[in-house]
Amino acid sequence: MDVAGLVERARGGDPRAVARLITLVENDAPQLREVAAALAPHTGRAAVIGLTGAPGVGKSTTVSALVTAYRRRGLRVGVLAVDPTSPFTGGALLGDRVRMQDHAGDREVYIRSMATRGHLGGLASAAPQAVRVLDAAGCDVVLVETVGVGQSEVEIAGQADTTVVLLAPGMGDSVQAAKAGVLEIGDVFVVNKADRDGADAVAREINQMLALGEARAAGEWRPVVVKAATARGEGVEEVVASLEKHRGWLEEAGALAVRRRERAAREVEAIALARVRARLAGTDGARLDALAEQVADGTLDPYTASDRLLG
Amino acid sequence: MDVAGLVERARGGDPRAVARLITLVENDAPQLREVAAALAPHTGRAAVIGLTGAPGVGKSTTVSALVTAYRRRGLRVGVLAVDPTSPFTGGALLGDRVRMQDHAGDREVYIRSMATRGHLGGLASAAPQAVRVLDAAGCDVVLVETVGVGQSEVEIAGQADTTVVLLAPGMGDSVQAAKAGVLEIGDVFVVNKADRDGADAVAREINQMLALGEARAAGEWRPVVVKAATARGEGVEEVVASLEKHRGWLEEAGALAVRRRERAAREVEAIALARVRARLAGTDGARLDALAEQVADGTLDPYTASDRLLG
Repeated sequence: MDVAGLVERARGGDPRAVARLITLVENDAPQLREVAAALAPHTGRAAVIGLTGAPGVGKSTTVSALVTAYRRRGLRVGVLAVDPTSPFTGGALLGDRVRMQDHAGDREVYIRSMATRGHLGGLASAAPQAVRVLDAAGCDVVLVETVGVGQSEVEIAGQADTTVVLLAPGMGDSVQAAKAGVLEIGDVFVVNKADRDGADAVAREINQMLALGEARAAGEWRPVVVKAATARGEGVEEVVASLEKHRGWLEEAGALAVRRRERAAREVEAIALARVRARLAGTDGARLDALAEQVADGTLDPYTASDRLLG
Repeated sequence: MDVAGLVERARGGDPRAVARLITLVENDAPQLREVAAALAPHTGRAAVIGLTGAPGVGKSTTVSALVTAYRRRGLRVGVLAVDPTSPFTGGALLGDRVRMQDHAGDREVYIRSMATRGHLGGLASAAPQAVRVLDAAGCDVVLVETVGVGQSEVEIAGQADTTVVLLAPGMGDSVQAAKAGVLEIGDVFVVNKADRDGADAVAREINQMLALGEARAAGEWRPVVVKAATARGEGVEEVVASLEKHRGWLEEAGALAVRRRERAAREVEAIALARVRARLAGTDGARLDALAEQVADGTLDPYTASDRLLG
């Protein structure tokens, strides 16, 4: 199947074509550029929502509940679960995804896991391409879920139109969440598992931290804090309402275009850096190894080594 | 103070000189190359130990207990806490470091926090330089503690001679830990807070996962799983013994030289990429913005944009 045909079939809603395109993107296939060029004119319609939070806050459950809510509205939904995998444990990690099986038979829902394995930056360029595939495939909403609260996860979740940060009581305090830099990227904070003790305290703490950082110009978005217990279906409609409110603000304030330009810039930059990195590992690999040996010996400093490598 | 003088004073054990050198490294100061060149001949002696684990597993407490154990052996210890900070919360995040105040008056202990803020990759080049400063300052052991279990944290902790992964019962199951890719990087796994229920189960699960991945050649290191409750001082000596055992293996098996060459290669590569990134944000910034606008509009795909950006 040629790329143009695949894109055509994906646009028509063929889930296998969508899956194959994402695989091409994920594997950095030779056809990648052709795929990207074919997708470009058909993108920009989907609302891209990033979700992040520490393991155990209920991200998969929340994503599944959001899918149900959007499906009830008749929308087509894509889910991209950015999920580090391990060669040791492979299949076991799919455990989480079991919760998504509620949507397994629904042809209007595309669910895809992507690995963050390999070098930093690899995913930073692959995830936005996968979002483009889902966007071109007519998804009204694309949910990008990242595992963990590391900086790369935060960056990926932050590359969305709207970013949701999930918290839960008893998962280490919210100061820990603040450490990962999620306060700055959250448009909507969901305090999940709100049926447990301590949810009010978490919500209060986040509100206080947001107030501390409050120096917003008129018309700026003020992050919303919502309590929910998505495993019981509680608070899901409030979360969706907050997401829609943010969407409205994005469009009215002209912020959507700005965010998307910034996202495109990060994407182009990530691709350029990945290419430089590939060159360093490839044709320049032997030279890098020789320089590294001198650095390890203490006979060369790493900056001079980097000069020699680039120059 | 000139750089050569600072390095001389740092080698003599002056904590202010050590602090100033790390600040130069962290701020990407103009003297950075001169600092790196002056340090290079004096490095390679310290045992570099990386520690990572999810928030709440007791990393700071464990690091503090390890410092005490190494000090009891008469060793000079450096601690580099790689700690994302937030402009919103700033000072509050120092809470963690309070536990380190046991060592505040000890001139043979250097403790330093570094921020992961800013672009990915920035820290990947700054942290190894800070380790070099501590190494040149005569530290026998350098403990590099990272917050969070994201990929960047895992990469930083993995750039050590010996990598310790901390886990604790009730912090989300160990499958979650596996997701972050820590199984592959851990030389020693510490199941902390072992006085709590579930510690045996976590230890068992990790051992099982390690066994699943078991296809080690003769002479390869088999990761060790140790239970501890470092806040009570329990198991600390066992952890140190495991670290020393790994150190012995590294030296006997010739693995230390291999690891250090690889680390140097990653370091040189990170510096080279940071330089390319700086160029893209700097002199090439306006061009990137113009290309990003076309990508956001769908009139250009990001790969072609990246081609045009790079040249």
